[in-house]
Amino acid sequence: MQFELNKNTISEIKQLIISNDTVAISSMLKELHYADIADILDEVDFDSAIIVFKLLDSEISSDILAELDEDIRDKILQALSAKEIAEEIDELETDDAADIIADLPEDQKEEVIAHLEDVEHAKDIVDLLRYDEDTAGGIMGKELIKVYEDWTMFTCVREMRRQAENIDKVHTVYVVDDHEILKGRLSLKSMLTTSTKTPIKEIYNDAVISVKIDDKDEDVALIMQKYDLIVVPVVDEMGRLVGKITIDDVVDIIKDEAEKDYQMAAGLTEDVEADDSVFELVKGRLPWLILGLIGGLGSVFIMENFEGALSKYKALFFFTPLIAAMAGNVGVQSSAIVVQGLANNIIKGSIWKRLLKEVSLSLLNGIILSLMILVFGQVMGYEFNFTLSIAISLVAVIIIASLVGTFVPILLHKKGIDPALATGPFITTSNDIFGIFIFFYIAKLILGF
Amino acid sequence: MQFELNKNTISEIKQLIISNDTVAISSMLKELHYADIADILDEVDFDSAIIVFKLLDSEISSDILAELDEDIRDKILQALSAKEIAEEIDELETDDAADIIADLPEDQKEEVIAHLEDVEHAKDIVDLLRYDEDTAGGIMGKELIKVYEDWTMFTCVREMRRQAENIDKVHTVYVVDDHEILKGRLSLKSMLTTSTKTPIKEIYNDAVISVKIDDKDEDVALIMQKYDLIVVPVVDEMGRLVGKITIDDVVDIIKDEAEKDYQMAAGLTEDVEADDSVFELVKGRLPWLILGLIGGLGSVFIMENFEGALSKYKALFFFTPLIAAMAGNVGVQSSAIVVQGLANNIIKGSIWKRLLKEVSLSLLNGIILSLMILVFGQVMGYEFNFTLSIAISLVAVIIIASLVGTFVPILLHKKGIDPALATGPFITTSNDIFGIFIFFYIAKLILGF
Repeated sequence: MQFELNKNTISEIKQLIISNDTVAISSMLKELHYADIADILDEVDFDSAIIVFKLLDSEISSDILAELDEDIRDKILQALSAKEIAEEIDELETDDAADIIADLPEDQKEEVIAHLEDVEHAKDIVDLLRYDEDTAGGIMGKELIKVYEDWTMFTCVREMRRQAENIDKVHTVYVVDDHEILKGRLSLKSMLTTSTKTPIKEIYNDAVISVKIDDKDEDVALIMQKYDLIVVPVVDEMGRLVGKITIDDVVDIIKDEAEKDYQMAAGLTEDVEADDSVFELVKGRLPWLILGLIGGLGSVFIMENFEGALSKYKALFFFTPLIAAMAGNVGVQSSAIVVQGLANNIIKGSIWKRLLKEVSLSLLNGIILSLMILVFGQVMGYEFNFTLSIAISLVAVIIIASLVGTFVPILLHKKGIDPALATGPFITTSNDIFGIFIFFYIAKLILGF
Repeated sequence: MQFELNKNTISEIKQLIISNDTVAISSMLKELHYADIADILDEVDFDSAIIVFKLLDSEISSDILAELDEDIRDKILQALSAKEIAEEIDELETDDAADIIADLPEDQKEEVIAHLEDVEHAKDIVDLLRYDEDTAGGIMGKELIKVYEDWTMFTCVREMRRQAENIDKVHTVYVVDDHEILKGRLSLKSMLTTSTKTPIKEIYNDAVISVKIDDKDEDVALIMQKYDLIVVPVVDEMGRLVGKITIDDVVDIIKDEAEKDYQMAAGLTEDVEADDSVFELVKGRLPWLILGLIGGLGSVFIMENFEGALSKYKALFFFTPLIAAMAGNVGVQSSAIVVQGLANNIIKGSIWKRLLKEVSLSLLNGIILSLMILVFGQVMGYEFNFTLSIAISLVAVIIIASLVGTFVPILLHKKGIDPALATGPFITTSNDIFGIFIFFYIAKLILGF
C-alpha cells in the first residue's frame, strides 16, 4: 500500500467537486490516509474544503482537524456548530483535543466542552487546558496504560484488555503505587514470558526516565533525544504519573526550534512562510530591514566624520562595503557556531580558553585574507602603505567581529534571552558599524590624515 | 529515577581517576545511564576515557560506543583489538553495528567481522554495509518481529517469545506471506483480544505505510513526520520486508538537515562545531570569507569606475555600506523563505504569481524604507535630488535583490542542487555587488555625473 499523494489525485478531486459527485468523492476519500486528505484540504479553495470535510466520517475528520494548517482549521471550525466540534473532539486523543479547544474563542470553549459525550475524556481535556503550551504538561497526552505494583500479571493483562481502545498506540506499560506515584515500567518481553500469577512488583523495571510537568518543551525534546526515548512519562510535583509525551509531538518541537533559529539568522521575525500573504510577509521582514537601514545610516555618519581622508585617500572609501561584509560574515559565523553549541549543550569550559581560541582562529583567517588584499593592492598599483593599512585594519575588524559574534550570544544566554536573537541582522548591523569605524580609525593612525 | 548529569559527577569521576580508585569508579558508573557515561567520556581527557571505558560491562560499553562523538569513538576503537571491537559489536543492534564497522579502516573491517560470535547477526550487519549511508537501507535495522499470514495467533505468540531478546524495543509486528512480502501489521490490541486459534490472515491490518530500500533518508524523514510514524518497515524492490527504521534515528536526520541549512545560511561549510579545533574551524569558515573578500574587491572595482562622481557627490560613497547591507539582508530573507518552503514542500503554484508577490512585497518594503531615507536626507541637509536618487535606487536594489534571493534557490532546486547553497554568503556577496552597481548606475542616470 503506497500513500503517495500526487497532483492527479488533487485535480481529480477538484473535478469531482465541480461536478458535485459526492459519491465518487466519498469513495475516493476512503482510499486515502488522513494526512493526505489534510493536504488536499490545504490545496483546494475553502468552499470545496468544507464540502469535502462534511463528507468524511467523524473518525477520520477529527484526525484531519488535528493535522490541518491552523488558518484552514480555524475557518473549518467556524463553519461547524459547537455540537459538531464536540463530536470531532470526542474522537481525538486528549493532547490534540486540548490543542484545538485552546484555540477556540473563549465563549465557544465552554459550549464545546459541555457537548462532549465521554465525561472522563472531557475531564482529561479540561485538565490539560491548565498547562502552558510550551511545557511538558502542555504537550502531553493522558492516554497511557498504567498498572499497580500490587497487581499480578493476570490482573494486569485483564486491565490492559479493558483499556484496549487505544492500546495499539501504547508502547510502554507504566507501574505505579497506591498513591499513583510512578515506580517503573513493564516490558512487553516480561509480559510475554512471565506466569500470570507473578506479582508485578517482582518483575518491573525501575529504570525509567521521566520528565516533570512544568519542564520546558525544549528540555523534554533534549532528554528524549539524548536517551533515545520514543515515549516519556510525565510526573507531577509529587512524582505521580499524569501523562505521557510521544516522540512524534517532540519532532515538531525540534523542527520548529531549528527553523526559528534559522529564521532569526535570516532576519525574519518568527513564522513567516512562503505562502503567507504579502502583508504578513512585509510584517515579518520590514523590522529587520529598518534595523539594517539604521545601521547603514550610522555608517554614513561615521564616514562624514572621516571625510577629511577623501582628498588624499579616496580609495579608502571604496573598501567600506568589503570591510562591512567581512565584519558581518565573521560575526554571523561566530554567532551561529555559538548558538548551535548552546542548543546542543556543548559550550563548556572556561571563557578565557574560548576567547583565546576565537582570537587565534580570527588571527589566522585575518592574516590569510590580508595577504590576499596585499596582492590585490600590488596588482591595482596602490601605494604600499595604503594597502598595508587596509590589511591591518581588516585583521583587527575580523578579530573584533568574531569576539562580538561569540560573546553577545553567550551573554544573552546567561541573561535568559534566546541567543539566536544575536545572529543575523542584529549582529551584522552592529558589526557593520563597528567594522567601518575601526577601519577608518586604524587607517587614520597609520596613514595620518 | 532522575538521570540529570551534573558537573559534580564529572569532577568526582575525574578525582577518582587521578586517585586510581577503580572500584569506586565502577560502582559510580553502574548508577549512570549509558548516554550520561558517553557525555563523561566526551568531557575527560583521552587516557581517562580509555580507563573508564575498560571498566564497563560490554553490554553498556557497546551502547556508549554507538552514542559517542565520532572523533572520540575512533580513538577508543584504535585502542581496542579486533576481537574486543567484535565483542562490542556483538551487543549492538544491527544498524548501530553497521555504522561502526563502516567507519573502520578497510583491513580491520574483515578482521572484526570474522570475530563476530553470532553468525545470523554478522550476516545482517554485512548485509547492511551494502547500502548507501543516506538511504533507507543505510539507516534501517534488521531487528523486527515478523509473522507469516498462514500462522495462527498461537504460533505467532510462541514465535514472539522465541524472538523475545529484543522484544521490548519492538512496536509493531509485521505480517508477511510465504515470499516474505509485506502484507500488513498486527496490533497489540488484536493480539490481546483474539483467541489463539484465529489465523493471522483474518485479523491483520493491511493499511501499512512502508518505504523502499533505496528511498533517500530525507524522504523517509518526511514520510514519518507526515504520517506520524514511530517505526516504518523497509521493503526491497519486490516488496519483501527487509528491515525497519525507528523515529529516533530519523530525529537525528531531521536535526542534521535543519542544522545544515542553518550553517550554510551562516556561511559555514558543513559540520563545524564550537568544540572543534582551531584548524577545523578555519577550514570551515575561510572559504566563505574568501568569497566575501572577492565580492568586496568587486565592489572596489565598480566604485573605481564611478570615481567621477566623487568630486560632486562624495556623500554617494558614504551610502555604499547601507546599500550593500540592504541588498544582502533582503536577499537572505527571500532565499531563507524559499529554502524553508522547498524543504516543507509548500512552494507550489505558478512562477508568475510568485514573481508578482515578491515584487509587490519588495515594492512595499522599499517605499517605506525610502521614505525614511528622504527624511534622513532632509535632516542632514542633503540636496533633495541627491536623496531622491538614493531613495529610488534603494527601491530598485531591494526588488532585484529579492528576486535574486527567490529565484536562485528555486532554480538550484530544479537542477537538483541543494537550494540552501544560495542562502548566506553566496547570495549576500552577489547581491552586494549587484546592489552597488545598480545604485551607482541609477544615481548616474538621475544626477547625470
